[in-house]
Amino acid sequence: MAGTIFILNGPNLNLLGQREVDVYGATTLAEIEAACRDAAAGLGFEIDFRQTNQEGELVTWIQEAREKAVGLVINAAAYTHSSYAIPDALATFEGTKVEVHLSNIFKREEFRHHSTLSNQVDGVICGLGPQGYVLAIEAIAEIANS
Amino acid sequence: MAGTIFILNGPNLNLLGQREVDVYGATTLAEIEAACRDAAAGLGFEIDFRQTNQEGELVTWIQEAREKAVGLVINAAAYTHSSYAIPDALATFEGTKVEVHLSNIFKREEFRHHSTLSNQVDGVICGLGPQGYVLAIEAIAEIANS
Amino acid sequence: MAGTIFILNGPNLNLLGQREVDVYGATTLAEIEAACRDAAAGLGFEIDFRQTNQEGELVTWIQEAREKAVGLVINAAAYTHSSYAIPDALATFEGTKVEVHLSNIFKREEFRHHSTLSNQVDGVICGLGPQGYVLAIEAIAEIANS
Amino acid sequence: MAGTIFILNGPNLNLLGQREVDVYGATTLAEIEAACRDAAAGLGFEIDFRQTNQEGELVTWIQEAREKAVGLVINAAAYTHSSYAIPDALATFEGTKVEVHLSNIFKREEFRHHSTLSNQVDGVICGLGPQGYVLAIEAIAEIANS
Amino acid sequence: MAGTIFILNGPNLNLLGQREVDVYGATTLAEIEAACRDAAAGLGFEIDFRQTNQEGELVTWIQEAREKAVGLVINAAAYTHSSYAIPDALATFEGTKVEVHLSNIFKREEFRHHSTLSNQVDGVICGLGPQGYVLAIEAIAEIANS
Amino acid sequence: MAGTIFILNGPNLNLLGQREVDVYGATTLAEIEAACRDAAAGLGFEIDFRQTNQEGELVTWIQEAREKAVGLVINAAAYTHSSYAIPDALATFEGTKVEVHLSNIFKREEFRHHSTLSNQVDGVICGLGPQGYVLAIEAIAEIANS
Amino acid sequence: MAGTIFILNGPNLNLLGQREVDVYGATTLAEIEAACRDAAAGLGFEIDFRQTNQEGELVTWIQEAREKAVGLVINAAAYTHSSYAIPDALATFEGTKVEVHLSNIFKREEFRHHSTLSNQVDGVICGLGPQGYVLAIEAIAEIANS
Amino acid sequence: MAGTIFILNGPNLNLLGQREVDVYGATTLAEIEAACRDAAAGLGFEIDFRQTNQEGELVTWIQEAREKAVGLVINAAAYTHSSYAIPDALATFEGTKVEVHLSNIFKREEFRHHSTLSNQVDGVICGLGPQGYVLAIEAIAEIANS
Amino acid sequence: MAGTIFILNGPNLNLLGQREVDVYGATTLAEIEAACRDAAAGLGFEIDFRQTNQEGELVTWIQEAREKAVGLVINAAAYTHSSYAIPDALATFEGTKVEVHLSNIFKREEFRHHSTLSNQVDGVICGLGPQGYVLAIEAIAEIANS
Amino acid sequence: MAGTIFILNGPNLNLLGQREVDVYGATTLAEIEAACRDAAAGLGFEIDFRQTNQEGELVTWIQEAREKAVGLVINAAAYTHSSYAIPDALATFEGTKVEVHLSNIFKREEFRHHSTLSNQVDGVICGLGPQGYVLAIEAIAEIANS
Amino acid sequence: MAGTIFILNGPNLNLLGQREVDVYGATTLAEIEAACRDAAAGLGFEIDFRQTNQEGELVTWIQEAREKAVGLVINAAAYTHSSYAIPDALATFEGTKVEVHLSNIFKREEFRHHSTLSNQVDGVICGLGPQGYVLAIEAIAEIANS
Amino acid sequence: MAGTIFILNGPNLNLLGQREVDVYGATTLAEIEAACRDAAAGLGFEIDFRQTNQEGELVTWIQEAREKAVGLVINAAAYTHSSYAIPDALATFEGTKVEVHLSNIFKREEFRHHSTLSNQVDGVICGLGPQGYVLAIEAIAEIANS
Repeated sequence: MAGTIFILNGPNLNLLGQREVDVYGATTLAEIEAACRDAAAGLGFEIDFRQTNQEGELVTWIQEAREKAVGLVINAAAYTHSSYAIPDALATFEGTKVEVHLSNIFKREEFRHHSTLSNQVDGVICGLGPQGYVLAIEAIAEIANS
Repeated sequence: MAGTIFILNGPNLNLLGQREVDVYGATTLAEIEAACRDAAAGLGFEIDFRQTNQEGELVTWIQEAREKAVGLVINAAAYTHSSYAIPDALATFEGTKVEVHLSNIFKREEFRHHSTLSNQVDGVICGLGPQGYVLAIEAIAEIANS
Repeated sequence: MAGTIFILNGPNLNLLGQREVDVYGATTLAEIEAACRDAAAGLGFEIDFRQTNQEGELVTWIQEAREKAVGLVINAAAYTHSSYAIPDALATFEGTKVEVHLSNIFKREEFRHHSTLSNQVDGVICGLGPQGYVLAIEAIAEIANS
Repeated sequence: MAGTIFILNGPNLNLLGQREVDVYGATTLAEIEAACRDAAAGLGFEIDFRQTNQEGELVTWIQEAREKAVGLVINAAAYTHSSYAIPDALATFEGTKVEVHLSNIFKREEFRHHSTLSNQVDGVICGLGPQGYVLAIEAIAEIANS
Repeated sequence: MAGTIFILNGPNLNLLGQREVDVYGATTLAEIEAACRDAAAGLGFEIDFRQTNQEGELVTWIQEAREKAVGLVINAAAYTHSSYAIPDALATFEGTKVEVHLSNIFKREEFRHHSTLSNQVDGVICGLGPQGYVLAIEAIAEIANS
Repeated sequence: MAGTIFILNGPNLNLLGQREVDVYGATTLAEIEAACRDAAAGLGFEIDFRQTNQEGELVTWIQEAREKAVGLVINAAAYTHSSYAIPDALATFEGTKVEVHLSNIFKREEFRHHSTLSNQVDGVICGLGPQGYVLAIEAIAEIANS
Repeated sequence: MAGTIFILNGPNLNLLGQREVDVYGATTLAEIEAACRDAAAGLGFEIDFRQTNQEGELVTWIQEAREKAVGLVINAAAYTHSSYAIPDALATFEGTKVEVHLSNIFKREEFRHHSTLSNQVDGVICGLGPQGYVLAIEAIAEIANS
Repeated sequence: MAGTIFILNGPNLNLLGQREVDVYGATTLAEIEAACRDAAAGLGFEIDFRQTNQEGELVTWIQEAREKAVGLVINAAAYTHSSYAIPDALATFEGTKVEVHLSNIFKREEFRHHSTLSNQVDGVICGLGPQGYVLAIEAIAEIANS
Repeated sequence: MAGTIFILNGPNLNLLGQREVDVYGATTLAEIEAACRDAAAGLGFEIDFRQTNQEGELVTWIQEAREKAVGLVINAAAYTHSSYAIPDALATFEGTKVEVHLSNIFKREEFRHHSTLSNQVDGVICGLGPQGYVLAIEAIAEIANS
Repeated sequence: MAGTIFILNGPNLNLLGQREVDVYGATTLAEIEAACRDAAAGLGFEIDFRQTNQEGELVTWIQEAREKAVGLVINAAAYTHSSYAIPDALATFEGTKVEVHLSNIFKREEFRHHSTLSNQVDGVICGLGPQGYVLAIEAIAEIANS
Repeated sequence: MAGTIFILNGPNLNLLGQREVDVYGATTLAEIEAACRDAAAGLGFEIDFRQTNQEGELVTWIQEAREKAVGLVINAAAYTHSSYAIPDALATFEGTKVEVHLSNIFKREEFRHHSTLSNQVDGVICGLGPQGYVLAIEAIAEIANS
Repeated sequence: MAGTIFILNGPNLNLLGQREVDVYGATTLAEIEAACRDAAAGLGFEIDFRQTNQEGELVTWIQEAREKAVGLVINAAAYTHSSYAIPDALATFEGTKVEVHLSNIFKREEFRHHSTLSNQVDGVICGLGPQGYVLAIEAIAEIANS
């Protein structure tokens, strides 16, 4: 294996597919995890896929990634727009980092247009639904291999 | 063929690979075009790849896409941050639309953090270099096939 | 019983009656819980009354309410003014939701004048002390019975 | 009788039940007045219920309340967001004061999120429809009796 | 007759032709009324032309228009820039509504550039002097006849 | 007599001496009127001293001053901070105009620091209590005599 | 003939009637041109009706109007909100100038509420659909004949 | 003598009567000093009248007033709008303090509308020319005698 | 012993010495703890030194300090700039409170210039590296002994 | 020859001497070109002097300068205040760059006070009329020769 | 001796102990000087302790420190919030620089929350009274010795 | 001689060539003075070249220039961004005035982008180093001779 990619999900994403289907789609988080696992495996990577409602736990997991991961995909959900602890943790991770959002956050409420994370990651992908996670894995693999 | 994807590039992108290599990388626009053509072909699509320094010409090309294209990738460069005519044109295009930026615009000057286009496209990909174009094509193909 | 009402309290409310009595009054949280239980019982409802200092735990409890409660009273205390995760959770709860504040937040510091929750609840009651909780329960009962 | 409660209504509230029923509900102002009269009577209070389209008349009525009322419920409607004369008048009234809004003003246009009155009343109730008036009367009675 | 058009004028417009002639022109309000009456008559409409210095009276007149008028022309003068009660009243009127200003408000002081009414009317005409009133009547007639 | 000076008072000033004595002092409006009458008489002027809670009535009175007064003292109270109709009326009065405030508005709440009237009067006097009215009359007399 | 009126249309207006019919209506630009020609002819004027997607071409055409036209109607579409070159050109044209918008721009997105052109034209007409062009021609004719 | 009044003048006031006569009038600073001396003498006071271009010297003089003066008139000219050292000094002076401006600062450039001094003085007089100084002396005498 | 001083550290401080050494220095958190323990012992105090990535845990620890500590040193790291729950907890602690930052936060990104804690502590020390903790302990000891 | 200096002029500058002579002076663009040619010749340089109304054409010409010019003088006129494409182009030009404005843009409307170009040029000269172009050429020559 | 530390004090600090004792404490500046001298001597340093009301004199003294001092403590008082000349001078001083405030400036008026100096010093200490000066000296000594 | 040109320099410019050489260059102020003297002499002018750290002294020197100088070059350094006293003094000087900055202030910190002086001078030159002074003298000579 070429290494592990951490895929970290923030608050309320455990409800995916059960709530606000018009915004977030009908796919569940478990289905996204499966799609990620398949895509990563095809590229020679393992994934470690997690979800939490706690800001501090995302911080701890990113710190853990420093030891265990070559890349990191993060969808911090609501913490995207208010957290400074998460970008501070991301700044300490030296692998490839991609921020993902299922919906196009620029079509939604004003407060969702700003992400405190974006300037601490390598790239941002939003609005492309579950496929965004897969594209992020491809990007990490591409960089790891280049 | 499954259809044509328009790939439209804005001002100064013709200089790619020749200027500010630390920001934009050493790849030329011709090399990006070649990578796009390969990726699209692999997915059964043709591309129509163009560059202009004129805001109004981007508007006209987007209007042309209404007749000829199933998807559209746009890197409007500096017009990303000031144009209202381009998003107005994008609003009239009903195929899949992805906004791409080579660099991570959220790591750069304040004025580059806001895009007037983002709420008129389906998805946004930034910071992933030339690969961002390829991922955008994959996303369009995925949606066209779903 | 007509169902359960969740009553969720945020950070530092466990100190009620012990601190800043001029702002929050001398009533303890236990006394408010008792008053709520009595009022709810009189209207045919049970309550589930909780307090936490963790933003993420409030999110988790609101998610839990989706399964167990017909109504929800929330006093998110300091998280009222900075959390986006809590209103995102509230958006997924379909029962009646009332935001309560003991003090009149509009008489206090500027940052307390804005609540990120208010546009995700049905109603807001503030400045009426512990009675505000009781009025919120009455409102939920009234809507449940109408 | 335990005293009189003034219930003052601002501009356009005379049209309640006839306009924008999706926002304000189908109840007329006369029906709200009846509900208030019943609730107050049950608690041993009389009410004096009025409506005007004039900002200055609300000021004059609040001044009148200084002589005649033990409590005051005010729904200043559109003047809520621009008047300084009404809060100046409220500052001179020493009985209990509750601001009421039928709709949840925090779910509506930006300008309705700010009330110039809120820091001159004891409590605020919004979003709970005609029942909000009844809850305000209960709050005033509770305070008068405590 | 095809119906009545209310033409409502706000504060200080009774002084037209007597003050600040360089800004507002030398035509009096009576002369504008006569021009409106002629234009309306030619299109088969009656007019009801009024002026007041009171914000609340404009509200009351707009409410009256709900019963009596097919269209409404409003020049709210200084209340254009601060009133929320007037646009709330306009929202309840279902006929055609046109906002008129004699002077070009965008050439004047900053505070005159914003109108609280504009998003509650069908159209806005400004800077065309007394002829603006006549054009507004034509627009109402055109819509009434279409 | 050298002419008449209009002295116009806005909302809630009828309560002077009865409310918020720490802010506005214990002098009543009648006592201020008497002091003004004495001071004006000593300088050869009559006064016309009025109070209203209505913004529109202040507008009408200023228009009336155009016919009857050589000078005008205005304390618009709360309308000082929100009215555009009053300064529009003041702009049409060609005699000497002085804005007066009993308290020092710059020591009070932020919203009281801005007056919409100040750029339509000749001078402003604030913070000097009832004497401010007398000084304003002196200033008008001085200018009338120079 | 009494002279020529230039009628200049900005980006995307060539798609009128084909896109966003709920916003802009079903009338095509050719139909508007025809209506303008008829209206102008009835008043003794010729029209020169043009459309472009280029900001700079609008500038050039306004310069051309200095030689050839007595009046100018301009709908700069999206350039209305960002161009300084167009108002600079308008400042050099000494005939009558009217800015027209088909939709009521004050009911739409925030950025459309501000026009950089409005303080360089004589009058503004918006929200009255294609008839707005005809009213603008009438206004120009009225001024030309007065 | 009833005591001394310090009258302190800031930068460029030494040029009064020689520059920008349309803004500041033709009276020289020496003539204002004479008028002040006469007015003060008539009320039983002496004056100490000074001018400086240095912000720090105004601070030192205000400190000196703590030992020598019963009242203080200050026209800090341009330092009115930027100094925090001057209001800090004024806060230490316990006699009566009046801020004076010759011109009506609210009719002038935006930056002149804000004074950092106003909330550290008892009263403010502006726009009444040299007479403003005399009125300030009267106010100080009135308070000293009351 | 003269009592205990709580020394509370926020998110990512557990990585000190391992990350961004140019910003935070090479000293580890364990080394800072040792230095604090030595300094406190020399002054007759014990310390309770903790670190957490959770905002809510900092709140709980501050509440615990109410029972156990005479002083409190807090470096809330990233929560310094967004938390309202932490300052609310600090407001309930009556011992001496000092906020410490290793780096000079005013030389860093804009968002780090504002601390929500500063107005709820006695003093702030920043930019002096690990020595800042020692100075804070000295300050607490000095106040405890005075 | 020591090389070529590009002198690029933006929209409406072709009308120099024909419009707004009080702002821009009576000199025509041809006369400025002649003065530039003379000055440059005296210093051993050739000039390439151009004007366009198109933003994109300025971009293209700056790109062309990369091949052909040792220095560049740019007066982007109205595009100075809104263009991001022009400064992006300037960033790719490595010769000496001077921004010139005929009028003192800081004495004019607020929007003209900000230039998007200024931080991408070496120096800025404004308010010195046609001579500003000559001084810019001297500065380029001085740097080229140093 | 290990060298000299300049301790520079700004406007109104000469009044310490005589004014606003509740804010600044009862200690005089001379007592602070004595405490500094003792502390410095204990660490092997001399001090040069000065106070001025002039911004420019602080600039000059900082320049002087370049020749004579190894460290610098500055309490610029009111100039802290408006001066750019002082931080420009500080930028030229290469020894250790600590900014000190007696009171906690973050608990006071809004304008005192921002210091123009903080990003030109090594560290900031505020709210710890006269002890802050002593701690600053310790910090300078520590750095000088490390 | 054709007259004298005052060349006034603000705070910290006496350190030129000794500090921050990367920003301001290695030329000393004495060398700039010499270059100015040569250039002026060549054009028939004398210069009076001064430097001060005091804002008030710059004011006094500008007043002195009214008597003695035909032109004035000013580099107010840090006072450029905060002084209102200096532009007030400049407004009284009727000769030609040019503001000069050695560095390109638009490439530096945000606060340096705004000059309070610019709208009170004829022209501004920045970013061209010591040569900027020479060009300013040429501009003054050109205007004096035209």
